Amino acid sequence: MKLRELRTPAALVELDVVARNCRRMGERVARLGAKLRPHVKTHKTVEAARLSVQGHFGGVTVSTLAEARALVDAGFRELVWAVPVALDKLSDVAALAARVESFGVLVDHPRTAAELAGAAKSLGVSLEVWLKVDCGYHRAGVDPKARESVELARALANSPGLRLRGVLTHAGHAYDARSLDELRAIARSERELTVAFAERLRGAGVPIADVSIGSTPTLSVADDLTGVTEVRPGNYVFFDAFQAALGSCTLADAAFSVLASVLGAHPARRELVLDAGALALSKDTGARHVDPRCGYGRVTELDGTLRPELELVSLSQEHGKVRVTGDVDWSRLAPGAKLRVIANHSCLAAAQFERYAVVRGDEVVDEWRPARGW
Amino acid sequence: MKLRELRTPAALVELDVVARNCRRMGERVARLGAKLRPHVKTHKTVEAARLSVQGHFGGVTVSTLAEARALVDAGFRELVWAVPVALDKLSDVAALAARVESFGVLVDHPRTAAELAGAAKSLGVSLEVWLKVDCGYHRAGVDPKARESVELARALANSPGLRLRGVLTHAGHAYDARSLDELRAIARSERELTVAFAERLRGAGVPIADVSIGSTPTLSVADDLTGVTEVRPGNYVFFDAFQAALGSCTLADAAFSVLASVLGAHPARRELVLDAGALALSKDTGARHVDPRCGYGRVTELDGTLRPELELVSLSQEHGKVRVTGDVDWSRLAPGAKLRVIANHSCLAAAQFERYAVVRGDEVVDEWRPARGW
Repeated sequence: MKLRELRTPAALVELDVVARNCRRMGERVARLGAKLRPHVKTHKTVEAARLSVQGHFGGVTVSTLAEARALVDAGFRELVWAVPVALDKLSDVAALAARVESFGVLVDHPRTAAELAGAAKSLGVSLEVWLKVDCGYHRAGVDPKARESVELARALANSPGLRLRGVLTHAGHAYDARSLDELRAIARSERELTVAFAERLRGAGVPIADVSIGSTPTLSVADDLTGVTEVRPGNYVFFDAFQAALGSCTLADAAFSVLASVLGAHPARRELVLDAGALALSKDTGARHVDPRCGYGRVTELDGTLRPELELVSLSQEHGKVRVTGDVDWSRLAPGAKLRVIANHSCLAAAQFERYAVVRGDEVVDEWRPARGW
Repeated sequence: MKLRELRTPAALVELDVVARNCRRMGERVARLGAKLRPHVKTHKTVEAARLSVQGHFGGVTVSTLAEARALVDAGFRELVWAVPVALDKLSDVAALAARVESFGVLVDHPRTAAELAGAAKSLGVSLEVWLKVDCGYHRAGVDPKARESVELARALANSPGLRLRGVLTHAGHAYDARSLDELRAIARSERELTVAFAERLRGAGVPIADVSIGSTPTLSVADDLTGVTEVRPGNYVFFDAFQAALGSCTLADAAFSVLASVLGAHPARRELVLDAGALALSKDTGARHVDPRCGYGRVTELDGTLRPELELVSLSQEHGKVRVTGDVDWSRLAPGAKLRVIANHSCLAAAQFERYAVVRGDEVVDEWRPARGW
């Protein structure tokens, strides 16, 4: 089947670009001397997860139990669920842990630690835990400077039924960086704060085997991973318009896009309507802090040629409105014409689709089904 | 099953609120003397569609062919697909049309009209069309002042195989209103422009049987539907935080919410982390133009009591970050606690879920499955 024959809106994944992105990140991380535990939350597929662990130890990171179940069913044996573990899901965690070599969960609160220890005891299992550290993003994680953080680490290390594996962070504030210099500074502090915290814990007698950090933007600039044992980037498998604006990649590295049909063309008001709206692309507003004209994604031809004069300025549920800012041949943009949109945020856009059409050039060569939901 | 036993994040639909919303809108539209053809795009379910057509003629509006198929399978017989028809889906349209009394599609471009007429001829069918009119939203639709718009109407009326049913508009710019006065003005102009255009077409000899307008905000303030034959509001079935900010409803009318667990509590930085992130709530930024502190939804207790001091200030893929702006009992907000979030935009949030838990008080009484995708 040809790409242009797909019903729109359709999720497209460029197989060769995914493979290249995986190879490059794999080589980069190996060169920096860390283990790669790629995050699968962007694509949520077994197929892309396999490509991303090639040449590495096979460990992966998940954001949901749905992703975890799909990967465990497919034979993955070392997983970390990189969201603070939810107390209503401890029996699911124990059931998954029983099927694999390691299924790590995150803890950043004494109550979670106590409940987890209680569940391990009552279920008669041993659960692997990571202490989640806040390295400046201020979303989840303990304060690496606080005395209570050492106490929590010690409680985890001393709880029968829990095995404290290490400390783990994610510098999500890297996405707010306004320059490569700022990004590099965040990457440095992500490593330094987390490694220093691990040293502090070791100094206090708490054994810390692993130090896990990383995001796609920080890994794209990091030049020193001393003290870090593993990294967990994920978005790089697909990349997106946000990462390109940030400088983590170029638009040519974006492996995910949405195929759309022109539904309406209005030369008098210089606008097009596409059938890719908020439900196909998500309402992620993109990297506006570094690219104020990013709109809701970047429009390209079917062969990937950028059409910068076609600005995707607004989305409603099933409509994408394009402002035409340059000279165009309107006869080639009439209803029925097809275009592609590189999403601002591939993680959110990809999750809108039941299936991805995997393409090579203009040929559809495969279909992947993401593990959606929770 | 009790509401609090649901695995989070979970989509909750309050059955009695849906029924009340449907009854009120149904009575309102009947009083105004128009037919009600409710839009199903917000809930995408057969069950809510049935509640919304009670006491009316049974016609519905859809935004996708997936919704259309689900409703036709369930016995609905009068549908309008309220997005300009996509030329790659004409055989699907013909197949659906063959199963029902009427399946209307929208046209706003001469090329679409020509292709549709060609498809009707080659498939040997007759297709019902509506001329889509732009009443000021400037998304889809023809300019009601332009000469070409009359020509397009005439072409539709004269095409063998096409049956021009009427004109149809949607005042989506009502969502940008900054006051009730502004909203009323938009509602008035939605009706006046569209009715005047219908009169102009009739004056030019083009028969226009139906005039279809409407959105939830404009219908919430409209006091005159003279010349209008049917209206197509949809969001009112669930309502949401956006509509409440706009004044179309109160927060107590919001029938859709997301049940979330507290994953982390950080008293030192006065923050909570919930397991309802961008994939559960969508990144719709809400009615910020009238409610700058709307965040990404409104947090409530399980019984619906508003917690205005819990501000949902940011969302990442699986995390929702809450800023705690008032005095709270932190022991009741520890990990494992449950809260609800009234989404900013129920249409986008509901579409993230495979199923809705239908609740009455704290009891789960049913499960509905939306027709997602395309």
